[in-house]
Amino acid sequence: MSGLLPAEALSSEDHSGLYKNTQRLLSLEAALEILLKYAQPAGFESINIQSALGRVLAEDIYAPLNLPPFNRSPLDGYAVRAEDIIRASPDCPVKLKVSQEIPAGSSVKSELGRNQAAVITTGSPFPPGADLVIKCEDVRKTDGKIEVFSSLPAYSNYCFAGEDIQLGERVFSKGEVIEPASIGVLAGLGLSSVPVYRLPKVAIIGNGNELVDIHEQLKPGQIFDTNSYVIASYVRQMGARPVQAGTVSDRAELIAQKIAEQLGSADMIITTGGVSVGNYDLIKKALLSLGAKILFHRIAVRPGGPVLSAEKDGKLIICLSGNQAAAFVTFHLLALPALAKLMGTTRQQQTSTTAVLHNDYPKASKQRNFLRGRAYFDGGNLKVRITGKQNPGMIQSTLHCNALIEMPVNSPGLKAGEQVRIILLNMPGLQPN
Amino acid sequence: MSGLLPAEALSSEDHSGLYKNTQRLLSLEAALEILLKYAQPAGFESINIQSALGRVLAEDIYAPLNLPPFNRSPLDGYAVRAEDIIRASPDCPVKLKVSQEIPAGSSVKSELGRNQAAVITTGSPFPPGADLVIKCEDVRKTDGKIEVFSSLPAYSNYCFAGEDIQLGERVFSKGEVIEPASIGVLAGLGLSSVPVYRLPKVAIIGNGNELVDIHEQLKPGQIFDTNSYVIASYVRQMGARPVQAGTVSDRAELIAQKIAEQLGSADMIITTGGVSVGNYDLIKKALLSLGAKILFHRIAVRPGGPVLSAEKDGKLIICLSGNQAAAFVTFHLLALPALAKLMGTTRQQQTSTTAVLHNDYPKASKQRNFLRGRAYFDGGNLKVRITGKQNPGMIQSTLHCNALIEMPVNSPGLKAGEQVRIILLNMPGLQPN
Repeated sequence: MSGLLPAEALSSEDHSGLYKNTQRLLSLEAALEILLKYAQPAGFESINIQSALGRVLAEDIYAPLNLPPFNRSPLDGYAVRAEDIIRASPDCPVKLKVSQEIPAGSSVKSELGRNQAAVITTGSPFPPGADLVIKCEDVRKTDGKIEVFSSLPAYSNYCFAGEDIQLGERVFSKGEVIEPASIGVLAGLGLSSVPVYRLPKVAIIGNGNELVDIHEQLKPGQIFDTNSYVIASYVRQMGARPVQAGTVSDRAELIAQKIAEQLGSADMIITTGGVSVGNYDLIKKALLSLGAKILFHRIAVRPGGPVLSAEKDGKLIICLSGNQAAAFVTFHLLALPALAKLMGTTRQQQTSTTAVLHNDYPKASKQRNFLRGRAYFDGGNLKVRITGKQNPGMIQSTLHCNALIEMPVNSPGLKAGEQVRIILLNMPGLQPN
Repeated sequence: MSGLLPAEALSSEDHSGLYKNTQRLLSLEAALEILLKYAQPAGFESINIQSALGRVLAEDIYAPLNLPPFNRSPLDGYAVRAEDIIRASPDCPVKLKVSQEIPAGSSVKSELGRNQAAVITTGSPFPPGADLVIKCEDVRKTDGKIEVFSSLPAYSNYCFAGEDIQLGERVFSKGEVIEPASIGVLAGLGLSSVPVYRLPKVAIIGNGNELVDIHEQLKPGQIFDTNSYVIASYVRQMGARPVQAGTVSDRAELIAQKIAEQLGSADMIITTGGVSVGNYDLIKKALLSLGAKILFHRIAVRPGGPVLSAEKDGKLIICLSGNQAAAFVTFHLLALPALAKLMGTTRQQQTSTTAVLHNDYPKASKQRNFLRGRAYFDGGNLKVRITGKQNPGMIQSTLHCNALIEMPVNSPGLKAGEQVRIILLNMPGLQPN
């Protein structure tokens, strides 16, 4: 890649270094398709619903009972028979004898007789015979009796068994992510445990002579590893299990050894660094020495184009650029959807939409380029602002970034007020920061 | 509230039961203001950044070093002096002697002499004297020398120390939620631990004779408690610590005892149930017996209007309706922002915007009413569909709900295609389900 170029070619537009063969590079979509083909969930387990938040259902769930389980009252009042009050009017109220009281939680045994009323509360079961409830405040109470001043159709203020969720109904689908409300519904259905996909373990390795871990002393020429921390945090946020396997210097045999160590226990490996022009072949050499199958290398995207993926022992290895913004972008575009697939979810991780650009970005881009931005609603409009300097080696643009702004191939630059295509990353917080 | 009404008043529009005194009820905004006044973070602690995801910073954070810490190369190539190549052209290349090699991670000691070049890689420090980098592919290598074919301005391909983040710069503000990228920046700055607010413990109590826990046997007339599970899951999702304190039957002394038990260790208590017309005073009676100060009861909102809040020993107690959809709505509108404040975050938990309604909702509403819906982007448009039946006692509408749709006071109903005001709840997944 760093071979000689004839001097006469140097002024030509075709030679833009790393990205010179744009046309022949794999598209983002093609690369993603390859990754998704290889990412398969690794079995499932049954867990308690109180631990199930964010987990992915491994089977469809059918309601084992009706919700509500019985015909019940939606409010406090008197259960009566519609036919008994059919002639009730303010001038000529109907008197009914209060024959029973049905607290919530009680099981009803006795039928409501003609011209009788039962005191009933919210959530109480209907007594047989009763077919509606009159609100407390709509009757006049006199000793042992109530007076009703108007008729009501049968099944007024009446909740039918199963009207919320019906016995046998499919309530959840395989691949659904379990949300707080799902846990409520599972509890309501009496399901204390659910089958979910096993959580994948993702090993994260940082490559680079200049990298040191935060717990070490920084020497001149060195920087702290940041990519492993960002990626581990996203893996954790998704609900999977990150393993920060540390950093390794730019030597193929050490990289190979580190990857081999993790292959035993990890379900997926993500590396950063070691893919730039000079040391690009390091990672590839390391992977080939392990007998891994290279799935692709380089895609037609900036930043982070020199991404490589391989498969070994049925496990995906995704090698991202060491530049922080580049690693961030390709992690979101490629590694995160692959991880989601590994977790078994059918939910799309990212939302593609359009937004109004808040600031100018005058720099032209020959490549398809993903800028870091923050999307937010301004009244009814979705807007997006560019989050700081966009050099691939800067981390600042990833702070508060919740969207990638797409510049298509040969974009002359972007103007404030323009509609741009964006990919929304993590949804919490669409407000301007 | 369940007192007698004169028969002649029954046909009047003014008497709509529970909600008859709309004008005199507290607004949602006023109730929220009261809660936010009482919700104060309870101290802070220092934690490792690898455990800090989702936590809230208790102090501003200033950069203790420059990022990058030194002037460095953004790519692989040759570090040279701009003045040495000022006359370089394709016809008349300049030859420079390769005098040193600077691998990433090395500390540079020797100055670059006149007409010399240093092999430099991405992330390597600049040698003193050099002021730009020429890409590998833009030179011709001959034994021990390189030929350069064009001039470049000084500081081309040059990353300055501190150009990403500057020493002393405020990088994070107190009250910020720590996101994955924040953890990367903290690592990059060598900050292995951060001051964060202590996680509040939220006790959740379900009231109702009819409630049984999922691990018990359901008898006729009983239902499984769902609200505690939903609320505990949201508390967990927010990163706080839920304590499911179980269910208690509708007796004021038992409710008081249960609340008293939790007051010792919890930072906030949320109860559900026991606030409907018939038993509304149960909760209030229980709270008064404990010497709690009632902050408000009932607000001008549906569903879930009969909400009550109290304060005891500096701790907030929020009592929601037992109806599932009502508890869901008021949890989001009141309890969740109060909890966020307790957690110390300055981030808004909910986003207010407008969306195009997908379906008709013909039912008029006198009260300000919050329907459950699912917001999603359809191309560039934010749309919202109503998630199933909207009765307050039904849980189905809360499934896949990520937005509350606001019907203003005296709304005649909503029509498909209409612009509606919505509150986006949790952002992950704006796609149609």
